[in-house]
Amino acid sequence: MKKLINHPENVVDEMLDGMAAAYPERLSRIPDYSVIVRKQAPVQGKVGLVSGGGSGHEPAHAGYVGKGMLDAAVLGEVFTSPAPDQIVRAIQAANGGKGVLLIIKNYAGDVMNFEMAADMAEMEGIPVKSVVVNDDVAVSDPSRRRGIAGTVFVHKIAGAWAEAGASLEEVHRIAEKTVQNMRSMGVALTACTVPAVGKPGFDIQEDEMEIGMGIHGEPGIQRTALLSADETAGMLLDAIFKDLPLQKGDEVAVMLNGLGATPLMELYILNRKVSECLQDKGIRVFSTSVGEYMTSLEMAGCSLTLLKLDDELKKGLKAPADTVSWVQAEGGR
Amino acid sequence: MKKLINHPENVVDEMLDGMAAAYPERLSRIPDYSVIVRKQAPVQGKVGLVSGGGSGHEPAHAGYVGKGMLDAAVLGEVFTSPAPDQIVRAIQAANGGKGVLLIIKNYAGDVMNFEMAADMAEMEGIPVKSVVVNDDVAVSDPSRRRGIAGTVFVHKIAGAWAEAGASLEEVHRIAEKTVQNMRSMGVALTACTVPAVGKPGFDIQEDEMEIGMGIHGEPGIQRTALLSADETAGMLLDAIFKDLPLQKGDEVAVMLNGLGATPLMELYILNRKVSECLQDKGIRVFSTSVGEYMTSLEMAGCSLTLLKLDDELKKGLKAPADTVSWVQAEGGR
Repeated sequence: MKKLINHPENVVDEMLDGMAAAYPERLSRIPDYSVIVRKQAPVQGKVGLVSGGGSGHEPAHAGYVGKGMLDAAVLGEVFTSPAPDQIVRAIQAANGGKGVLLIIKNYAGDVMNFEMAADMAEMEGIPVKSVVVNDDVAVSDPSRRRGIAGTVFVHKIAGAWAEAGASLEEVHRIAEKTVQNMRSMGVALTACTVPAVGKPGFDIQEDEMEIGMGIHGEPGIQRTALLSADETAGMLLDAIFKDLPLQKGDEVAVMLNGLGATPLMELYILNRKVSECLQDKGIRVFSTSVGEYMTSLEMAGCSLTLLKLDDELKKGLKAPADTVSWVQAEGGR
Repeated sequence: MKKLINHPENVVDEMLDGMAAAYPERLSRIPDYSVIVRKQAPVQGKVGLVSGGGSGHEPAHAGYVGKGMLDAAVLGEVFTSPAPDQIVRAIQAANGGKGVLLIIKNYAGDVMNFEMAADMAEMEGIPVKSVVVNDDVAVSDPSRRRGIAGTVFVHKIAGAWAEAGASLEEVHRIAEKTVQNMRSMGVALTACTVPAVGKPGFDIQEDEMEIGMGIHGEPGIQRTALLSADETAGMLLDAIFKDLPLQKGDEVAVMLNGLGATPLMELYILNRKVSECLQDKGIRVFSTSVGEYMTSLEMAGCSLTLLKLDDELKKGLKAPADTVSWVQAEGGR
């Protein structure tokens, strides 16, 4: 295992300290908790937003804590759900008197622990609502679909509405609408190594790729020969189109997300084809985000997310944001 | 070679098209040239800033084209200097009547081609000045020191002064001062593979690391056993301190740059130690940037840059910027 770490069991703890040390004006760590909070949290009179899950997906989720996105991120060990008491602490820190929305990726452990924490917080008198993100079309049964990179669009859009003063019900409705209109599909070229395990999660040959892998080092749904960038882009789009009917004239936000070790060069080459295909179908691109938004340690590969937009979702996407890993100037996209 | 590409000889061309397609409101590609220009370029009455070099270092340099940073980036093939006629075209596109500053990384091919282009542009009546960045302390002779990730600080600071209306002489002076006060040092854990070559640039064992490698796949100055994150941070700092005398009370900007395949988690763990060591020495940290600023394709490893600040450099760092890969809100760091 070749990593720039100290002890494998300390990676999350040391990462949180290193992150808080890097951005003392934007965020802080709650002492003894794996929770990163916005420096101004709780913002009085604003709906609080909390997300999180296992570590190893950086910059998700702590990189999105800040103005216009999340109020707190709660982290478990690598690829492991955070415990309910940690999540309750994040909810308390995010609550500015108007309630808290939890943005949960659809994994059994995350859903169970976040919902348990929601119940505990409600017993303390904090109104809590939840949205479960399940954008990954690799799994055919929607109730079992995993939450992957599209989750960051939910942070952005719900975060913008919360920042603009929307009620908990309204922010929840916007977050649900974002989830309903969003689909993602991914491929992996290599596996990643969980520090505490010390070896890659699966074996894969030099001429193979894994279609529809998850973001936790788990293998995908199908293994094929390595496709070209154009073939990969076409395959990802086809999987999404099958599940998200898009008409000529529809407007979408595109995210091409790198999983950790895939150079930006390759993501741009993929976007060239994605952009061409969407243009051929008469689908308008409102915004494109190319980069590492939700990774899987040092896995090579990518995911493509399409989000079908309306005016409410566009308003959320366009709004300014000021977090460590998503900064958006007034009027930007 | 496991890459999401089409034909190895087309990677730069297709990347540029994919990038221009992603951000049509911010930038465009000059047709038939490997030049990315700011959408508004040339900005009349503003000093133009041009940088570039071989591809493979994304997001450098095209990711820094935009308000507050560069006006144009000119790209060669992977790890290959751009030709003088390409650079001249970038200078023409960036010239808003107040002259153009070239920000050149210190490699023989880059320096030769950019200077040839400067002469050609001056014959057309465009005033041109150059700054050569040589922040890499791995090489002991300063005249032979390479330009690495610190180059992005020069884009940011000189870009801010140009945006604020400074003259070519002033922007040049600020850029030179940034270079004088900046040092970087890097390590690699793996090699990277140039697409047209098809195999890694050097062999390295599972328990080894390369100290002071360059960003072009070239090996470093020394090979050692794999160090821990804390040992690595200490070693990088020591190399910089030897060359950049810092006193108690001095203020610095810190950049921890990932080379492509190193997870953000590891960079934050490194920053924990860097931040501790600086605090122990009484050196104040003005800003910290952790992420991938100048990569070497999918190389694993990182570099550390320290920039000693004064009020002029701080003013440049703090100013707003709106580029694809460095966005800074008003009042941010």
